[in-house]
Amino acid sequence: MTVPAHEVMAVHQLYGAQSHAIDEGRAADWAATFTPDGEFRSPSYPEPAIGTAMLTAFAERFHQSCAESGETLRHVVSTIEVRPGGDPDTLLVRAYLQITGPSRLHRLTVLADELARTGDGWRVRRRAVHRDA
Amino acid sequence: MTVPAHEVMAVHQLYGAQSHAIDEGRAADWAATFTPDGEFRSPSYPEPAIGTAMLTAFAERFHQSCAESGETLRHVVSTIEVRPGGDPDTLLVRAYLQITGPSRLHRLTVLADELARTGDGWRVRRRAVHRDA
Amino acid sequence: MTVPAHEVMAVHQLYGAQSHAIDEGRAADWAATFTPDGEFRSPSYPEPAIGTAMLTAFAERFHQSCAESGETLRHVVSTIEVRPGGDPDTLLVRAYLQITGPSRLHRLTVLADELARTGDGWRVRRRAVHRDA
Repeated sequence: MTVPAHEVMAVHQLYGAQSHAIDEGRAADWAATFTPDGEFRSPSYPEPAIGTAMLTAFAERFHQSCAESGETLRHVVSTIEVRPGGDPDTLLVRAYLQITGPSRLHRLTVLADELARTGDGWRVRRRAVHRDA
Repeated sequence: MTVPAHEVMAVHQLYGAQSHAIDEGRAADWAATFTPDGEFRSPSYPEPAIGTAMLTAFAERFHQSCAESGETLRHVVSTIEVRPGGDPDTLLVRAYLQITGPSRLHRLTVLADELARTGDGWRVRRRAVHRDA
Repeated sequence: MTVPAHEVMAVHQLYGAQSHAIDEGRAADWAATFTPDGEFRSPSYPEPAIGTAMLTAFAERFHQSCAESGETLRHVVSTIEVRPGGDPDTLLVRAYLQITGPSRLHRLTVLADELARTGDGWRVRRRAVHRDA
């Protein structure tokens, strides 16, 4: 069983939109790439962010922290693999996320996401970030 | 309003072709990924390149400069987001462009492009490169 | 002549799957992204790997070497360009492959692949890795 080409393409668009949203400081737009009850778990942060309000606050803190340090960081996404989920309205995604500045790589992480089909297209329902040692 | 999957895919192909053209020294092929009146503006260069002749000369200079320094640089493109433009024959694109050598990242830039539909497919009409500090 | 969008997308999926397979130590899954007589040639290794058994052994050695050095390396693929091959069941692909760890880029290589259509989708028939100096 394979994922139809137009669904794969919609996932590439979702990940492109998501990175540009957080990197431009559009916190609400970033949160809207998750489902309303979407989860974000990362070893870089002590607590998961769950639901639109917490996700928005997370993206606002990220942007503020960059502004305070005077450093522009970018979420560079690549090597996306989209696989079928347990039902037709669920997809599983693996991708690499490099968080990088103008001169050096800050973090290399692996995204393991579960996406849900919504009326507005695919959204992240669960994201588990794995950070390489 | 979303961009149809096959148009998004054509944009991914355009950006892949564009990078490999400039990195292999095929200056005319690189210039041909722009419209005949295409514009390229980047803070890394004092003057914009406008139109096929200037674009070709730009790509030739890039290749020559790499040859002189003995350094192979690569235009690594990722995190492409394609959005609808003001009319059906225009698209807007955001992407990350890392200009990188074998051992270090030289520049991290953000592409903000306007694409135009042509008889040969999508072409860059206006490119504004934003260079991270 | 252009490659249909759904074929391009299948190629993106193949490259995503391939990287995640070798990086997670799934050697047989990695080998299965090549045709049964698939070839892998790289200046980083003295001998080409040809056919499923050699390809599997290659991926096992890569994983073991990372385990021994305690280093997690990732095959970050980007800038994919898919072109028609000599017949409808062959495609040619250029892409950038960055082999990178959490803090530094280990190798920047260019993939020049020939893909063959199989009953299970596109598979790599010949891969020539070009390593930048």
